[in-house]
Amino acid sequence: MAFEGKLPEKAVERLSEYRRTLLNCLNEGKTHIYSHELARLHNITAVQVRRDIMFIGYTSAQRKGYDIKDLINAIGRVLDSDTGLNVCIVGIGNLGTAITAYFSGKRSKLNIVAAFDVDEAKINRIIAGVPCYHVSRMAEIIKEKDISIGIITVQADYATETANNLVAAGIRGILNFTSVPLKVPDNVYLENSDMITLLEKVAYYVKP
Amino acid sequence: MAFEGKLPEKAVERLSEYRRTLLNCLNEGKTHIYSHELARLHNITAVQVRRDIMFIGYTSAQRKGYDIKDLINAIGRVLDSDTGLNVCIVGIGNLGTAITAYFSGKRSKLNIVAAFDVDEAKINRIIAGVPCYHVSRMAEIIKEKDISIGIITVQADYATETANNLVAAGIRGILNFTSVPLKVPDNVYLENSDMITLLEKVAYYVKP
Repeated sequence: MAFEGKLPEKAVERLSEYRRTLLNCLNEGKTHIYSHELARLHNITAVQVRRDIMFIGYTSAQRKGYDIKDLINAIGRVLDSDTGLNVCIVGIGNLGTAITAYFSGKRSKLNIVAAFDVDEAKINRIIAGVPCYHVSRMAEIIKEKDISIGIITVQADYATETANNLVAAGIRGILNFTSVPLKVPDNVYLENSDMITLLEKVAYYVKP
Repeated sequence: MAFEGKLPEKAVERLSEYRRTLLNCLNEGKTHIYSHELARLHNITAVQVRRDIMFIGYTSAQRKGYDIKDLINAIGRVLDSDTGLNVCIVGIGNLGTAITAYFSGKRSKLNIVAAFDVDEAKINRIIAGVPCYHVSRMAEIIKEKDISIGIITVQADYATETANNLVAAGIRGILNFTSVPLKVPDNVYLENSDMITLLEKVAYYVKP
């Protein structure tokens, strides 16, 4: 596989989730946290939490638990790129706008620096803090701004074409919010977020 | 646990994803599909596909592969509620609107029948096809419309309060799109969708 030497996907998800919780705790004025507190907040075992955190080389012998700031930094050293990564979003409708606004300023190492759309009313304007370009300029802008990740929030009919264009422009990771299964080369990382699957899952466990 | 006798979460996700793909195939005029085709579209093994499909009691000895319509129905008998389930969405901003529009008409057994917000400009109006009510009417409308699932797309500050109100109103499943970890009773099913975690995962596998 193209992603050898990397942590397993589930471990990466958990580390990202721990960091989110730790940032919330820091905001609330907390300075230390026990593994069992972190575990309870994530509905997993304390053993799992300690194993994940040992795995990234962080240890704390303190009786007060983990130092929250230190642990956030330790997770950052594993998850984040040293120099930061630039991200673009293709399709800046309701979903694209919501996602862009949501990410804005939440992670300093990940920056949404460009949006692409076909709607003339949006081109060359700033939407949710991000400049919007016509999709025909995708390859040019991706190179110019050194963008390595593309988020796809176009309508289903345009999903495949969009993914192909992103790959051709040299993008290395795609986050797909459409319901269309995409094919990408082995060296491009693809993550799908299908909201229908999530809702169907809830419905399955809820139904009588 | 409160969800005994149900399929494991990953199996439910895969079945939902198979159905999505099968519906696309049907739209394209296909009538049959082999397990290895379905496997390739989902980047998993054909053995996994066959195991999942056998597991829900569907078998096909046909040399043409699975009958797509039959298989869609077989998945529906497992995943769907006989009578359908009603869903509400709390927070009908950009994300809420996008999600509501996205779901609209995609699954006949799941209906978003109410939205809640605090913005007076939205109250008592139809947004993305759904009537919007003030959040103070949540308990009343949830009972009146027999709603069993709540989607949370409010701002982070209101997430916990919203979840508590949904639970108090008798909701049995929650799909949380905020970054706030929620606590719900054991008999309420909680599914989290954190877009930052998804993007951080892509970034981790993409970074040099």
